[in-house]
Amino acid sequence: MAYNLLKGKRGLIFGALNDKSIAWKTAERAYEEGATFVLTNTPVSMRLGTIDKLAEKCDSIVIPADATKVEDLENLIEKGMEFLGGKFDFVLHSIGMSPNVRKGKTYDDLDYNFLMQTLDISAISFHKVLQVCRKLDAIEDWGSVVALSYIAAQRTLYGYNDMADAKAVLESIARSFGYIYGREKHIRINTISQSPTFTTAGSGIMGFDNLVDFADRMSPLGNATAEECADYIVTLFSDLTRKVTMQNLYHDGGYSSMGMSLRAMKIYNEGLEYRDVKKDMRRKKD
Amino acid sequence: MAYNLLKGKRGLIFGALNDKSIAWKTAERAYEEGATFVLTNTPVSMRLGTIDKLAEKCDSIVIPADATKVEDLENLIEKGMEFLGGKFDFVLHSIGMSPNVRKGKTYDDLDYNFLMQTLDISAISFHKVLQVCRKLDAIEDWGSVVALSYIAAQRTLYGYNDMADAKAVLESIARSFGYIYGREKHIRINTISQSPTFTTAGSGIMGFDNLVDFADRMSPLGNATAEECADYIVTLFSDLTRKVTMQNLYHDGGYSSMGMSLRAMKIYNEGLEYRDVKKDMRRKKD
Amino acid sequence: MAYNLLKGKRGLIFGALNDKSIAWKTAERAYEEGATFVLTNTPVSMRLGTIDKLAEKCDSIVIPADATKVEDLENLIEKGMEFLGGKFDFVLHSIGMSPNVRKGKTYDDLDYNFLMQTLDISAISFHKVLQVCRKLDAIEDWGSVVALSYIAAQRTLYGYNDMADAKAVLESIARSFGYIYGREKHIRINTISQSPTFTTAGSGIMGFDNLVDFADRMSPLGNATAEECADYIVTLFSDLTRKVTMQNLYHDGGYSSMGMSLRAMKIYNEGLEYRDVKKDMRRKKD
Amino acid sequence: MAYNLLKGKRGLIFGALNDKSIAWKTAERAYEEGATFVLTNTPVSMRLGTIDKLAEKCDSIVIPADATKVEDLENLIEKGMEFLGGKFDFVLHSIGMSPNVRKGKTYDDLDYNFLMQTLDISAISFHKVLQVCRKLDAIEDWGSVVALSYIAAQRTLYGYNDMADAKAVLESIARSFGYIYGREKHIRINTISQSPTFTTAGSGIMGFDNLVDFADRMSPLGNATAEECADYIVTLFSDLTRKVTMQNLYHDGGYSSMGMSLRAMKIYNEGLEYRDVKKDMRRKKD
Repeated sequence: MAYNLLKGKRGLIFGALNDKSIAWKTAERAYEEGATFVLTNTPVSMRLGTIDKLAEKCDSIVIPADATKVEDLENLIEKGMEFLGGKFDFVLHSIGMSPNVRKGKTYDDLDYNFLMQTLDISAISFHKVLQVCRKLDAIEDWGSVVALSYIAAQRTLYGYNDMADAKAVLESIARSFGYIYGREKHIRINTISQSPTFTTAGSGIMGFDNLVDFADRMSPLGNATAEECADYIVTLFSDLTRKVTMQNLYHDGGYSSMGMSLRAMKIYNEGLEYRDVKKDMRRKKD
Repeated sequence: MAYNLLKGKRGLIFGALNDKSIAWKTAERAYEEGATFVLTNTPVSMRLGTIDKLAEKCDSIVIPADATKVEDLENLIEKGMEFLGGKFDFVLHSIGMSPNVRKGKTYDDLDYNFLMQTLDISAISFHKVLQVCRKLDAIEDWGSVVALSYIAAQRTLYGYNDMADAKAVLESIARSFGYIYGREKHIRINTISQSPTFTTAGSGIMGFDNLVDFADRMSPLGNATAEECADYIVTLFSDLTRKVTMQNLYHDGGYSSMGMSLRAMKIYNEGLEYRDVKKDMRRKKD
Repeated sequence: MAYNLLKGKRGLIFGALNDKSIAWKTAERAYEEGATFVLTNTPVSMRLGTIDKLAEKCDSIVIPADATKVEDLENLIEKGMEFLGGKFDFVLHSIGMSPNVRKGKTYDDLDYNFLMQTLDISAISFHKVLQVCRKLDAIEDWGSVVALSYIAAQRTLYGYNDMADAKAVLESIARSFGYIYGREKHIRINTISQSPTFTTAGSGIMGFDNLVDFADRMSPLGNATAEECADYIVTLFSDLTRKVTMQNLYHDGGYSSMGMSLRAMKIYNEGLEYRDVKKDMRRKKD
Repeated sequence: MAYNLLKGKRGLIFGALNDKSIAWKTAERAYEEGATFVLTNTPVSMRLGTIDKLAEKCDSIVIPADATKVEDLENLIEKGMEFLGGKFDFVLHSIGMSPNVRKGKTYDDLDYNFLMQTLDISAISFHKVLQVCRKLDAIEDWGSVVALSYIAAQRTLYGYNDMADAKAVLESIARSFGYIYGREKHIRINTISQSPTFTTAGSGIMGFDNLVDFADRMSPLGNATAEECADYIVTLFSDLTRKVTMQNLYHDGGYSSMGMSLRAMKIYNEGLEYRDVKKDMRRKKD
């Protein structure tokens, strides 16, 4: 169902890889809600994914850009405004990658060049987008910027590795730049801390499936899907949330406010029971 | 501008006193967005305020109820569902009052009967609303409940007194009941932590004007108004925010994430300067 | 090992029931560190427990008091200062009880008289202690006050019920009163958010054993014991922590900052596996 | 006054520049409490400051090291253990510097090479210290690691610039590495979020004096000094705080839990008044 919440608004969307991506779903929903926008991703991601189909479907274009490169961003933003015929009303940053995770380097054996890349790709790119937009005066007054984060910025999850640090910087950038862009242009900047989601990015994490199961059973409403995240992002891009800024907003079915649910605890209890059962069986064998 | 975000939805709205009230603005916006609802307040507040006009304007009715009384709530909720022809899709709790504040009892000289009343009126009433709704099965699956809070629940403000404790319980109730109502009926429960607002309730607080000025200069986007709060509440009542629950959501122009803004610091600096000026003048007199 | 950290200091300790109590362990440690103090509990708790033995061991006395009664507190504090020959340097509040939990009333079926009692006993008693101390000028400048809390104040745990709301108020009172008592007498007030602990109070909670196991495996350092909590409290009572105030301090082996540990996840994974195994067995039976 | 809290403990202290440094005060206090330790700083800081005097006073040595260089850290840690005759029981990280701040680059005009240096010096150096220690097995079981942070990691202060992002990563590293080092060696890792302090590092920040004044009047106990911070660090290095880990601990006289104090508001009110006075005077002139 559509409400014309973004009628007449122009946007810039980073990070749509394929139809599992939150950025992809957001583009679809933004289109339904009346927005026009420009899509972007790195040339590599464009080849790996199917972003062109999305562009076609949404009467959009794809402008390739590596978000860690200021020149690429300048080109993207200028071309984007040209295509849309004006400044952006909203920007979505959905970018994250850790070479340490990819190469199996654990957190107590980080490669520091990789760490710098993790931070650059997953967090500092957000600053670069904002700084370039600011210099080119590319965001409309009262515009809205959203970046996607994860609760690892607050709580340590084994295996999430240096992405936790990257998300911490990402959220810090939203606050720090939110102050400046807010006071000068009324532009709001927020991060959404989303449930673990079966995107191509998410599934790289070790033991991800069972972690998703745990999060789902912990959350009274279950995990939030990519579609639901897109819906939520639409409200943040709309004119109805103009005074929400510098926030990290949990979109997670209640997970972040849970200490323990009965549903999750039941599985845990069965795990403890199973241990006992297995111990018994071993004892009987002997 | 309206979007039909609440088309066909039924609601229950506590706490509209007069046209400055956040609950009043929310009712107006909910009406514009296609909702039908029932208004309620205590008999005393009904006399002091002008809620009948609001009801007329919104094709609604007013059912008097003291939200600290379970029987009143039962009557309200049953009559309300009857009038609307079905369960509620949304509920707004905007109730707060401290007899200690009213009677000028400071926080180190609390009257404990008054404290119990502060908690009962401003926080436990929220639990009562939820518990009665739950027992009467009065909220539709995937319904949305919002209560209004204030940052005093996290940070101490001189003069805010035992209302800080009340807001802390209020937010705790949103989490605790949000778990139960979420897992069983997919109902989400959140609090909004709103900028200090010139409502009739707000203006009872000591030194309120200058505190509002400070908050405004600290917030990159300025304080959020009652109208803007109503807009935000509409998004939380809509189907686009279904997986947001058990959260305390700051709607404050960025205030909560600020340590110090240049605008607020300038005033502070002038205050320090003025002290020096006055010292000098006194010295010259002698 | 003792360090004379509390040499010459006088204290007031609420809530020692038996040798499992955190208050009991704190009394022992405070004694070792050179403090003198007065113990107190309700007459009922005094009969149920063995506090007299503790008093004997620590050259202390027990003054019975119901901490929800202002007159009892006045008597306690006056007699206490008399016995010790001066004002208190430290106060420990370790009191909590929920009639709703005891009577098996769930959170969506609370008895509201019980709820008021839960709040009064577990939280408002803390305000009463502070207010009476303040009126009788019973705490020495730069004194230190600690109350025991639990992470349920921030995150919902099934079965913890209205104690979560009580802990939320407790922590709020620490902040609100911490401001007043700090600016006027340099007295600091903090809460410690302790691991779930096998005290008589703790073991009343439903499914407590396995919850403790979960917390233990989630915490990199394991759960904190009552003895360790006593050690920590000693540092907060000492002169080395004079500028820490209005804080909720997690003493939990890292639990509060964990999203998921490998050790806890392994048990959870076995629980999922066990479900599959049992499904298989059922299928084979058919 | 000394308590032998660190008797027999060995330590490693980064960041003592001169006798205003928190690291300097910590070294002095650790020495009084019976510890032996190694001091370190960059060759440049060693020349600018007077660390040699500190070493002499504390029967210590200075081993120069650039904490951003893994080889330097390896040399430092090996030599350090050799000098002390065993592994470290405690480590203090007190390092921070932003070339962007130094060169007057504002947050919306960051030089990205500088930003990488800010992060490397002020945050990633902490990871490097921990990772090298871990690889060389240089910290004793149940050891304690502390890094110094600032509330800018949570709340934006104008002028604090990219140091806010650095502090956010620093605190994230404490959590992420705290999990690993905790579960494997029982080593705890915490950050202290200290009041703004008149150290050489602190005074580089724009408008720092008045900000310190504001923080002081907001804090019920006033700002925490470097000496008091050293006292607090001693408790965290002692055996009495063994289950505190992965925490960011505010040592700030209550500042972090304040919304508004009467003392700070008075100055602000005078600032507003002064504006009115000056307006009047201007009007009279015309």
